[in-house]
Amino acid sequence: MLIQLTPSATAEDIHGIQILLDHLGQVNCLFESNHKKMIGLEKGLKDDQIKMILQLKGIEKIHALTTPYKLASIAFKKERTVIQARGVAIGGNKIVLIAGPCAIESKKQLSAITQKLRNTKTSIIRASAYKPRSSPYSFQGLNEEGLKIHKEVQKEHRMPIETEVTDIRDVAIVAEHVDIIRIGARNMQNFDLLKEVGKAKKPVILKRGLSATVEEWLLAAEYIMMHGNPEVILCERGIRTFETSMRNTLDLSSVALVKQLSHLPVIVDPSHAAGRKDIIPAISKAAIAAGADGLLIEVHHNPTAALCDGKQALLIEELASLSVDLEKIAIAIGRSL
Amino acid sequence: MLIQLTPSATAEDIHGIQILLDHLGQVNCLFESNHKKMIGLEKGLKDDQIKMILQLKGIEKIHALTTPYKLASIAFKKERTVIQARGVAIGGNKIVLIAGPCAIESKKQLSAITQKLRNTKTSIIRASAYKPRSSPYSFQGLNEEGLKIHKEVQKEHRMPIETEVTDIRDVAIVAEHVDIIRIGARNMQNFDLLKEVGKAKKPVILKRGLSATVEEWLLAAEYIMMHGNPEVILCERGIRTFETSMRNTLDLSSVALVKQLSHLPVIVDPSHAAGRKDIIPAISKAAIAAGADGLLIEVHHNPTAALCDGKQALLIEELASLSVDLEKIAIAIGRSL
Amino acid sequence: MLIQLTPSATAEDIHGIQILLDHLGQVNCLFESNHKKMIGLEKGLKDDQIKMILQLKGIEKIHALTTPYKLASIAFKKERTVIQARGVAIGGNKIVLIAGPCAIESKKQLSAITQKLRNTKTSIIRASAYKPRSSPYSFQGLNEEGLKIHKEVQKEHRMPIETEVTDIRDVAIVAEHVDIIRIGARNMQNFDLLKEVGKAKKPVILKRGLSATVEEWLLAAEYIMMHGNPEVILCERGIRTFETSMRNTLDLSSVALVKQLSHLPVIVDPSHAAGRKDIIPAISKAAIAAGADGLLIEVHHNPTAALCDGKQALLIEELASLSVDLEKIAIAIGRSL
Amino acid sequence: MLIQLTPSATAEDIHGIQILLDHLGQVNCLFESNHKKMIGLEKGLKDDQIKMILQLKGIEKIHALTTPYKLASIAFKKERTVIQARGVAIGGNKIVLIAGPCAIESKKQLSAITQKLRNTKTSIIRASAYKPRSSPYSFQGLNEEGLKIHKEVQKEHRMPIETEVTDIRDVAIVAEHVDIIRIGARNMQNFDLLKEVGKAKKPVILKRGLSATVEEWLLAAEYIMMHGNPEVILCERGIRTFETSMRNTLDLSSVALVKQLSHLPVIVDPSHAAGRKDIIPAISKAAIAAGADGLLIEVHHNPTAALCDGKQALLIEELASLSVDLEKIAIAIGRSL
Repeated sequence: MLIQLTPSATAEDIHGIQILLDHLGQVNCLFESNHKKMIGLEKGLKDDQIKMILQLKGIEKIHALTTPYKLASIAFKKERTVIQARGVAIGGNKIVLIAGPCAIESKKQLSAITQKLRNTKTSIIRASAYKPRSSPYSFQGLNEEGLKIHKEVQKEHRMPIETEVTDIRDVAIVAEHVDIIRIGARNMQNFDLLKEVGKAKKPVILKRGLSATVEEWLLAAEYIMMHGNPEVILCERGIRTFETSMRNTLDLSSVALVKQLSHLPVIVDPSHAAGRKDIIPAISKAAIAAGADGLLIEVHHNPTAALCDGKQALLIEELASLSVDLEKIAIAIGRSL
Repeated sequence: MLIQLTPSATAEDIHGIQILLDHLGQVNCLFESNHKKMIGLEKGLKDDQIKMILQLKGIEKIHALTTPYKLASIAFKKERTVIQARGVAIGGNKIVLIAGPCAIESKKQLSAITQKLRNTKTSIIRASAYKPRSSPYSFQGLNEEGLKIHKEVQKEHRMPIETEVTDIRDVAIVAEHVDIIRIGARNMQNFDLLKEVGKAKKPVILKRGLSATVEEWLLAAEYIMMHGNPEVILCERGIRTFETSMRNTLDLSSVALVKQLSHLPVIVDPSHAAGRKDIIPAISKAAIAAGADGLLIEVHHNPTAALCDGKQALLIEELASLSVDLEKIAIAIGRSL
Repeated sequence: MLIQLTPSATAEDIHGIQILLDHLGQVNCLFESNHKKMIGLEKGLKDDQIKMILQLKGIEKIHALTTPYKLASIAFKKERTVIQARGVAIGGNKIVLIAGPCAIESKKQLSAITQKLRNTKTSIIRASAYKPRSSPYSFQGLNEEGLKIHKEVQKEHRMPIETEVTDIRDVAIVAEHVDIIRIGARNMQNFDLLKEVGKAKKPVILKRGLSATVEEWLLAAEYIMMHGNPEVILCERGIRTFETSMRNTLDLSSVALVKQLSHLPVIVDPSHAAGRKDIIPAISKAAIAAGADGLLIEVHHNPTAALCDGKQALLIEELASLSVDLEKIAIAIGRSL
Repeated sequence: MLIQLTPSATAEDIHGIQILLDHLGQVNCLFESNHKKMIGLEKGLKDDQIKMILQLKGIEKIHALTTPYKLASIAFKKERTVIQARGVAIGGNKIVLIAGPCAIESKKQLSAITQKLRNTKTSIIRASAYKPRSSPYSFQGLNEEGLKIHKEVQKEHRMPIETEVTDIRDVAIVAEHVDIIRIGARNMQNFDLLKEVGKAKKPVILKRGLSATVEEWLLAAEYIMMHGNPEVILCERGIRTFETSMRNTLDLSSVALVKQLSHLPVIVDPSHAAGRKDIIPAISKAAIAAGADGLLIEVHHNPTAALCDGKQALLIEELASLSVDLEKIAIAIGRSL
């Protein structure tokens, strides 16, 4: 349940409401989202409790939501959210192609790839400066140097750019350099990081955790939203199952489900789901048919020399050819690419 | 590895080959498939062993296959298999819609549903006479009485019909009454049943087990094929994972993968994967975009009164409307419905 | 819910009860278990329905059970079930060691292993004559020849023997040759096979399916029990998860849970769970500490030459040494070995 | 592979080695652990490359390790690691009982529980000041106020105390207030946090992630160790699987396996694995029999009023009674409690 406060509610009004909620045994927290002051309740209120609260000063409305996530719920906001990133809309009728190398390796590499991507349907460039790797002995990314390359390439090619943030202390600098911040699967329940990007003024791509349920995923989005940032783009990237012939099991049913449960845009990362090139075209088409608002695809101009995840990267020519097929599917479902 | 014998190979020739293989420590078995005598080897042979064997009498060819499944492998047979069931082709350019109720409940029910399905794109009727249920206290199906209803409805409406077999002793009677035999997920590794349908003269839909890997699934198909029946249709129906918002996790990556590994047709059952109606349209479209050769969908004219699985059954009108969308996707990928 | 009928209930009485249940929309089935006639209901009855039914002729008692499994439930039968197999009690205070090779390879092999096992704490010999293998090209067992060897070794060494049955048509002959019938993990929901061993007069070891929940496992036991055989021994052998360093993930919490939910004995198969020798001693000790009534362990006198699963088989000397440690744990928890 | 440098190796020597490694295409990183300078390599070196490197100045030894984790490997350090926390040894012959409430709720609560725990075998107090919760609307912990309570209770009762850290910025203050730092399951691959506790001077309990493999778990430990902190205590707390009758599936095979792969101590958290009280005694006994060096158990003096996870908390009297049984198992395996 969400209690929406009037714009004129005073600190005293709010204090009074919270004291009453404490008495009712309600864990509750005050926050501001989209310029509206709200109090979120973990549990529901009974009818007579609602009546009692509605008589207090400072209450505008009580949103009776039955899901544990609230701001992210379609019951809270009926119109689908469309997010703008440097002129590119995500979540609208047009499906968005986000592509780029796994990691930034050099200015030359990122610039060359971006140049070639201009000839595909790609509208946002992806590339990681910070690389969270299972092993401390693996390549860990170019870090701040990578961010600077990002900024230069963005200016040179006038394309929006997204990158991952892993460390709370880097959120500010990342938000300053790129147009979209990405939270990786391993950090989906790094709640302190979620709170921090909640304070940032840039859209956030939130990847689903390797073993996160749909509900946990939406609750992670809720963390970002209730800390002030309503611009969350959900990203399905495969879950961990017993099947070993792919890196992860892409869960397109969850994409379809999230489109019913939430107003937030949902994109799909077929590259990390598959971990192998050969099935990426087929599952990319399936993702769009399932209702995804975009794709996040790894490409490389020289996959065998890539510093990470080379074998799942498409050649840019392959992406160009795939995008022709993707457009046909988009049109078949009444959208564009 | 597969050793293909000449048509003229004598029992003596074959005995000699098997003795040599035993000496080489090779578990091996003789079988006949598609009128060709073969010896299948669990492990590979070394080059000098191959040379030695090729000098024996009765050898036509050695198929050097590196996968544990052989007849099912695309390395063994390059052209895609197209299976005919009473005039309907499965695995060809046209995508096949198989629909019907979960269980046969009465002549009246099946006939009414079939009549209505004639106005959709459905070309094969599905309905189970034998129901393998987790609880012995649940409705267990009409059994033989159900098969008779099947036969009557098939004659009345001149549409091919498919049904599940669960008991080895019923394979003959099921094969006599219906056009396609189905092996359910729980029986995917019931090897004795696989061997028995391997001897049947009807196509077999082989559902993927709840926790079967793609390799195990193809090996289950291999059991059917090496016992004499090359007409296997693979069916993805969701795997068991930690996610509980759907009944199972539909694995469309495996559909894409199997299309690369095998020449067999692959269909998808969105109804059992989802266990809920609301996402069936989206994942059905995704299945076709991923490359599925058909869909197996549950419908009912009165889902709330259905004896089993009512909440996942589409109304026939819903299927009719969905099939319009499915056809658009089919055309977008260069196929028809 | 279970309706227990009086011994004097006539066919007419029973028919009347079932007609009423049909009217109440209750899927119900009549069966005889432990010389008592019962009617099992899938769903529960309301209070007024119970009152109504209790007034009918032929009703002895209504067991109000809330679990989907009934005969297997501890709410139905408070005293723990102890099963006798040729003089060896399973489920009593003494923990039972069942050991032997994965497969019967020859009379010589089984006899030699059995002879050596006499010097360990082993009281039942295990060995499979029928081998359900993922690949049709793998060693499939000696079949009936294996059963004969079983019988001979049993007579020679006067030890009870257990083996797996996979084919319905073999249940009678297997029941004739061995003292305990085993249902493998892949057949846990082969309901026709469960019904058939339900009619056999020998105890049944029921392995948990690779992805079976505890509830499904107990429902599988229920199938056997309601078809007439109350002597079911549950066997945990690991479930399928994402973890690949072991063959399966041994789920000892389920062992502890089943001991609370059911009166049936529970044993553990550490060999198939681990798939590797090195951790078998540790998890065997853990299984006993968790409350298991026995262990099912693979041994071999020459593991590297074993026709199947050699790398998980203990040497018999290793088992002898392990059993000393196991006995200490058994005593620590107030039991014996 | 690990290259150990001589104490006298100069910056120039090291630079030369790294330039050569770069030429060999080796991702490599320099670090100091236990006062030894090392260079870790992601991949292995060939024999001739090793010879070449050994001729360079500044090399003391090359550790040829085949596992991706190195400092954590038993091949790197044969003797088992024993960690001291305010006089309590973890990883020695004596098994350690760590107990306390899920969350610190007040000074009164923690003090009362600690007082009562003195009469059990508990030697370390656990309680979380920072609570990472799936929902932002759930109780989030007392934070710094909780740390102060921790410190007071520690002084009052003279018992070592452990607590969770979730935010990089809190590592210093947490390390100052408690004796052992805990990394929760959801943060197991929060690599920036791992690096930060790697710089702390307190032992770290590293919980296994919900879907982490044993290898990933040991690599997470490696992150902490290579950043300077060798005192890592691994903690198994259940993995996420399809089984829903328990909160998670406790994986005691992994405990047994980790004891073979690593020299680090391993403890078990039965409370979070089970999520229900009834099976905690059985699985706690099993954990000790499997080789665990300690248990982390939730208790509460008033579980129904607990602010989080009440239904899995044992009463302190129940823990006292359980510890009698645990001691018997400990003695049976030659250890003490």
